Amino acid sequence: MERDGEIIEGEYVILYLDRRRKYLVQVKRNRMFHTHRGYVDLGEVVGRRYGEAVKSHLGFKFYIFKPTIRNYVMKVERKTQIIYPKDIALIITYTGIGPGSRVIEAGTGSGALTTALAYYVRPNGKVYSYDIKEEYLKKAEKNIRRAGLEDYVELKLKDVTEGFEEENVDAVVLDLATPWLVVKHAYNALADWGSIASYSPTVEQVIKTVEALRKTRFKDIECIECLIRNIKVKEGETRPETFMVGHTGYITFARKTLEGMNK
Amino acid sequence: MERDGEIIEGEYVILYLDRRRKYLVQVKRNRMFHTHRGYVDLGEVVGRRYGEAVKSHLGFKFYIFKPTIRNYVMKVERKTQIIYPKDIALIITYTGIGPGSRVIEAGTGSGALTTALAYYVRPNGKVYSYDIKEEYLKKAEKNIRRAGLEDYVELKLKDVTEGFEEENVDAVVLDLATPWLVVKHAYNALADWGSIASYSPTVEQVIKTVEALRKTRFKDIECIECLIRNIKVKEGETRPETFMVGHTGYITFARKTLEGMNK
Amino acid sequence: MERDGEIIEGEYVILYLDRRRKYLVQVKRNRMFHTHRGYVDLGEVVGRRYGEAVKSHLGFKFYIFKPTIRNYVMKVERKTQIIYPKDIALIITYTGIGPGSRVIEAGTGSGALTTALAYYVRPNGKVYSYDIKEEYLKKAEKNIRRAGLEDYVELKLKDVTEGFEEENVDAVVLDLATPWLVVKHAYNALADWGSIASYSPTVEQVIKTVEALRKTRFKDIECIECLIRNIKVKEGETRPETFMVGHTGYITFARKTLEGMNK
Amino acid sequence: MERDGEIIEGEYVILYLDRRRKYLVQVKRNRMFHTHRGYVDLGEVVGRRYGEAVKSHLGFKFYIFKPTIRNYVMKVERKTQIIYPKDIALIITYTGIGPGSRVIEAGTGSGALTTALAYYVRPNGKVYSYDIKEEYLKKAEKNIRRAGLEDYVELKLKDVTEGFEEENVDAVVLDLATPWLVVKHAYNALADWGSIASYSPTVEQVIKTVEALRKTRFKDIECIECLIRNIKVKEGETRPETFMVGHTGYITFARKTLEGMNK
Repeated sequence: MERDGEIIEGEYVILYLDRRRKYLVQVKRNRMFHTHRGYVDLGEVVGRRYGEAVKSHLGFKFYIFKPTIRNYVMKVERKTQIIYPKDIALIITYTGIGPGSRVIEAGTGSGALTTALAYYVRPNGKVYSYDIKEEYLKKAEKNIRRAGLEDYVELKLKDVTEGFEEENVDAVVLDLATPWLVVKHAYNALADWGSIASYSPTVEQVIKTVEALRKTRFKDIECIECLIRNIKVKEGETRPETFMVGHTGYITFARKTLEGMNK
Repeated sequence: MERDGEIIEGEYVILYLDRRRKYLVQVKRNRMFHTHRGYVDLGEVVGRRYGEAVKSHLGFKFYIFKPTIRNYVMKVERKTQIIYPKDIALIITYTGIGPGSRVIEAGTGSGALTTALAYYVRPNGKVYSYDIKEEYLKKAEKNIRRAGLEDYVELKLKDVTEGFEEENVDAVVLDLATPWLVVKHAYNALADWGSIASYSPTVEQVIKTVEALRKTRFKDIECIECLIRNIKVKEGETRPETFMVGHTGYITFARKTLEGMNK
Repeated sequence: MERDGEIIEGEYVILYLDRRRKYLVQVKRNRMFHTHRGYVDLGEVVGRRYGEAVKSHLGFKFYIFKPTIRNYVMKVERKTQIIYPKDIALIITYTGIGPGSRVIEAGTGSGALTTALAYYVRPNGKVYSYDIKEEYLKKAEKNIRRAGLEDYVELKLKDVTEGFEEENVDAVVLDLATPWLVVKHAYNALADWGSIASYSPTVEQVIKTVEALRKTRFKDIECIECLIRNIKVKEGETRPETFMVGHTGYITFARKTLEGMNK
Repeated sequence: MERDGEIIEGEYVILYLDRRRKYLVQVKRNRMFHTHRGYVDLGEVVGRRYGEAVKSHLGFKFYIFKPTIRNYVMKVERKTQIIYPKDIALIITYTGIGPGSRVIEAGTGSGALTTALAYYVRPNGKVYSYDIKEEYLKKAEKNIRRAGLEDYVELKLKDVTEGFEEENVDAVVLDLATPWLVVKHAYNALADWGSIASYSPTVEQVIKTVEALRKTRFKDIECIECLIRNIKVKEGETRPETFMVGHTGYITFARKTLEGMNK
């Protein structure tokens, strides 16, 4: 019988070696986790507390952390390119998605963004996530379930260029190759007060999407890109890191209006 | 009697003229709101729907939007420099603050970050926000109340260099001139699985804070800065905007561990 | 009779108050230069040495600096948007323009880039600078002459979409609204070993120009943007400056080849 | 006997496969150059023109380009970290180094910056480049000679914390671990109108250097960092490249004055 605060079998934890080597693993008795620094006996994690460390058989120390939503996002098993936490954070905060929100997402992909949306709409909101590939939905479901967020997501196998099934949603988030084809359906699914966000890697996608938004009664259209720079902090050696991610995607935001359509 | 979806007297709304001119106003009968584009009769907003527009007496169209958490943050009445939504978004997502989280914030300042934290810990979490200036707390309380989030915040007039009153919190967020003096208290207040985030404008603050974190059993220390670039999107004229915000502050993240203290 | 190193009447100097207030003035006896910090007697500068200071009648100190090529560029009298020193520096270094180079520039505009090119091709190179507006060429000539670089520039009133008059030039630098229309002419004017650089503010210009370069036997095509961040350095307050220039233009570079044309 | 414009034996050329694979090689009969795409017979390059291509024995096409100063800089044989062309370009343009300039450099390192300085001070200027390691000077000499610029450089084996041997130079450029120790000597070596530039990777170096500059009659102190972003340009796929160099070093500029020393 475990005491309060102890890690129990079946839980997911992060094993942390250093900033670049963090592993999301499920705690299981009689299971070994192999790393380049030796294997870790996952049974040893049972009954430990978060913040404690276990050692690999080669003596390297791995700290046990409770996975954050960021960890779950970065560790989704992927069939597709995922949206990074920095972009997810902006999508959620800028659209106002929060506890209780009803949100449409298209497409689901590997479910990284889906997982984060589900986390933030808890406990009384819902994410309706569409994809046309059953294979993606299955992978996404696994990722969402691993984070324990399946109650907040409805996965839908459907071609969104034919429209959404929900009405009066608070936000629509698009991560599609051709988001401009779905802007009109997003408009129809949104509540009066709703927001749209669209994530696209290329400039040409952005240009077409913004044009579609302008033609579809959306206002307050804003397109941003977010650059994160990591700083190496050490007395006498402080400096930004040599390499950085220079581009993930552009995020376009807009708000629904009931007037002003360009006819 | 208002119909469903109609705006009622007393609500806060955004009046949107263009991307740079958005106003957070309280809807009131017999009240005029003055802008450089003429005055708007706020009584006219009563009974309208979000997404509709009202006109100023000079004929300029203002769209009525429901304020998002980002709007509330940007429109706090300020006595201090605020943390911007881009940085708030990263603080919340990277620490894993979400519905149900119990969070300590120091200092409260104008309450911009407090408001956002309160929004995301709903409906069953809590923000304990400390400041040493009563004047700031009063201003912050007004800002939080305006966003309807006062149930999720406990404001505390106390010098945090003397410690926090909570235990087992999920996250501690610092926005202080001397965060390194509070790192030890943050450690004590955090649950085993807790995260800390510290926001500071200067490099010297970051260097001292990271040093304090290293000495206090924190691991997975990471310091970032976030640059947002706005893109002007228009067929044939697409380009990043000429001016941008080049710096707000550095954000340092770390996780509590139970081992490895440097004695 | 002036002694060695003394400033003589007729010279241009920089009067420096602070980082944001630097003035390019011609030293003249009996002439006053008016600033927000009082007027400076330019006759007082005669006979002084660089690095010394003069005072305005209100007692503010202005240091006398010898203008650098960067100062001349930033202080051109403008009828057009200029290319900034950061971008000029990259154009020159990346194309290999240097002492002795023969360079075509189109269009001249206010002559900011022309002035810098002339400075770097000295003493035995030449800049052939084209524009279709006589008004621009006159303004540019004045700016170039002020920097004492008129011997290294040939200004040409001609529509470059009809071709260039030079052959075997080392580099062609384009700052045009429609650079793609001139790529073929640039190819013909370039020596075998020549480089092209094209500066454009918008993405659409870049896309069309790169397409034209690909079709015209150019290789090693590279498109960059350059962001300069100023750091405020002061013990205890060190940080990047709050505002920065987020975009000036994209620079596209390519090298001529004699094979591989897409027919 | 070679015809005009033909490449002769002994010349250095760039063999260009693609943007990431460019090789600086010396043309020699009966010599093979090995690449991952097969070997190239360097004898075949003799008598060819720039812009033509040769094929490896596996049939891959390599374009022959005349090396630019940027190519020489990037291809120096290194014993040390070099300064990149982007930073070199700014150092040269911002200080006003150009044809005829007399410049002190410390330290020489692998000679990348030295080579570029030599290129730009031609034909009547000079670079005095100091290092304390003979091994570095030998390597640098080889690199400078390869670019044919040895007439414009004087290499000096000396500890610069003991001072420079030149007077009245136009610019001093520092790339040292402890630049602040040399600021006073730089002041003494500079002409009245001279400029200093100091390149440093870390914030702590910058803080100390700026402090030293302030105490040594330097004004117009400016510290920048330069970020270059490469754009992938292709119709329908245009976007910044995923990875970029996030930091090389900070560059600090200042101008000598004859007044205002803090005593």
